[in-house]
Amino acid sequence: MTTVAAYAAPAAKAPLERTTIERRAVREFDVLIDIKFAGICHSDIHQAQEGWGKAIFPMVPGHEIAGIVSEVGPGVTKFQVGDRVGVGCLVDSCRECDNCKAGLEQYCTGGSVGTYNAIGKDGEPTYGGYSEKVVVDENFVLGIPEGIALDEAAPLLCAGITLYSPLKHWNAGPGKKVAIVGMGGLGHMGVKIAHALGAEVTVLSQSLRKQEDGLKLGADHYYATSDPKTFEELRGTLDLIVSTVSAPLDLGSYLSLLKTDGALVNVGAPEEPVSLNLFSVISGRKTLAGSGIGGIQETQEMLDFCAEHGFGAEIELISAEQINEAYERVLASDVRYRFVIDTATI
Amino acid sequence: MTTVAAYAAPAAKAPLERTTIERRAVREFDVLIDIKFAGICHSDIHQAQEGWGKAIFPMVPGHEIAGIVSEVGPGVTKFQVGDRVGVGCLVDSCRECDNCKAGLEQYCTGGSVGTYNAIGKDGEPTYGGYSEKVVVDENFVLGIPEGIALDEAAPLLCAGITLYSPLKHWNAGPGKKVAIVGMGGLGHMGVKIAHALGAEVTVLSQSLRKQEDGLKLGADHYYATSDPKTFEELRGTLDLIVSTVSAPLDLGSYLSLLKTDGALVNVGAPEEPVSLNLFSVISGRKTLAGSGIGGIQETQEMLDFCAEHGFGAEIELISAEQINEAYERVLASDVRYRFVIDTATI
Repeated sequence: MTTVAAYAAPAAKAPLERTTIERRAVREFDVLIDIKFAGICHSDIHQAQEGWGKAIFPMVPGHEIAGIVSEVGPGVTKFQVGDRVGVGCLVDSCRECDNCKAGLEQYCTGGSVGTYNAIGKDGEPTYGGYSEKVVVDENFVLGIPEGIALDEAAPLLCAGITLYSPLKHWNAGPGKKVAIVGMGGLGHMGVKIAHALGAEVTVLSQSLRKQEDGLKLGADHYYATSDPKTFEELRGTLDLIVSTVSAPLDLGSYLSLLKTDGALVNVGAPEEPVSLNLFSVISGRKTLAGSGIGGIQETQEMLDFCAEHGFGAEIELISAEQINEAYERVLASDVRYRFVIDTATI
Repeated sequence: MTTVAAYAAPAAKAPLERTTIERRAVREFDVLIDIKFAGICHSDIHQAQEGWGKAIFPMVPGHEIAGIVSEVGPGVTKFQVGDRVGVGCLVDSCRECDNCKAGLEQYCTGGSVGTYNAIGKDGEPTYGGYSEKVVVDENFVLGIPEGIALDEAAPLLCAGITLYSPLKHWNAGPGKKVAIVGMGGLGHMGVKIAHALGAEVTVLSQSLRKQEDGLKLGADHYYATSDPKTFEELRGTLDLIVSTVSAPLDLGSYLSLLKTDGALVNVGAPEEPVSLNLFSVISGRKTLAGSGIGGIQETQEMLDFCAEHGFGAEIELISAEQINEAYERVLASDVRYRFVIDTATI
């Protein structure tokens, strides 16, 4: 066991504070990672505030982890000391169900283990990336290619894969008109990835405040959803919409923007149920779907794709003591576009 | 113009009564059909009661029409006098939009024309199948193969295609576990078609009242949705669910029955919005979709498929004066499984 410094929420809705946690000794297939950077994901806040149901406290959030391997177990073959690596939302899964076998660990039906706010197979709670070190089974560690700076790579482990997976699954690419709803941590990655995939990209954001950024990051069009004309103008024109917002949307309005057989895929998750008139999907045989992160192999594919296209996330680097303020700013949509904690400051 | 007898609702929610309507003179590409049978679809009731929005009165419902060609226009090439034919939910479409060109007239974006409760391209209201004759452009007339009795064929024109289209689109077939929600006019056709397509078929019905029928028509399993154990037992086991019910369902419960990447397709349309927790689709990358009837070519394919497999609908043949009583019985789910009006009794 190793005692490491971390930032934790001691209870639901309580501010995060500096503390220490224990990391397990490195086992046969484990990788010990010196965490360099940890992204702040909106879902960290949902969970720290128990918005998604009962949670485990103290909670060390963080599932956008980038760092350097500092020790490997004797059975490890995929990584060696000094490697640039990342950890995303999962640190284990059952490895036996059909989904795990198909590389869809994110939909593991036998019981996957979240990077934090979960109980590991050893019965101990998991603690996330707002800390100095983490020990993870090599099968849930990703290699970060040289082409991406570690701090800009961290958010790819959740925000990046959360957008990459549905964009690939629903065939975003040349000739496809794709809209990204929300121009935040997830959304800005959606713009970059959809553009790199060759799609014609539209941003649907509440206002035009971030229009310049959106166009710079690869969007072809930028519309304010506060303007009713947006919904008239774009009616029936889109192949795919990926919604990153966790506020409840008027789904019918967004579905009306789709062509026949189009899909509205939600990666943002409102805490409350949304209302839907089923005629919105019956007319035009439309799909309302969801998608959660991605599998391990797909996450590696995404990291390689981003490196190949020469981008990571757009970030604001902060020190650990700014975490609580950063949470407030995330809730106010005041971040361009992802806070990343420099874990040297913990 | 020809004056023909018909049954019409004179106003919203008023009982249907015998009346006469005018049918247009046969034009170049028109087919005059002596209607023999007309099915009663739940949507006839929705529309006659203005449950789906403002409607046109007097209304002659009926879009499950089977009859015999008695006259053709000079330009007609597809049909001749004496042919057994059917008409479904559409009597025209724009014929120019991408969907029309792709054989998806049901999703015509240029303006399709419903068989009743619509305004035709000539500016006149359309009147449906509860009448002696109808005049329809040959492109919206279907051939009914010899293998199906005309009375049992009538409901295929809406109920049949409404189930056939999504079952085909979402790949129901050998190795696939398909559930049909609701064992009514639509649902019983879903059982027959899914079975004939080679899928393993489960009926999800409120009670086990119609279990014997369901198994006889081709279901492999039959569950009561009033029993909470159904949702435990079937959790995560189905590839595709087609819901035919027009009552608002607890969508989350039904989505929980799907495997990863499974689809819940609604062909029934509640008048009120339904509530949905988006986690239900995010977990397991599930699809909530809709589907409406089918295209003209696909409808012909469905009729040929049913004839090849030797089945039509299960019907209760009624006389015109029983229409209002039949409406009450449809609303009470008391029909096995489709009322068909013998139009000789109008």
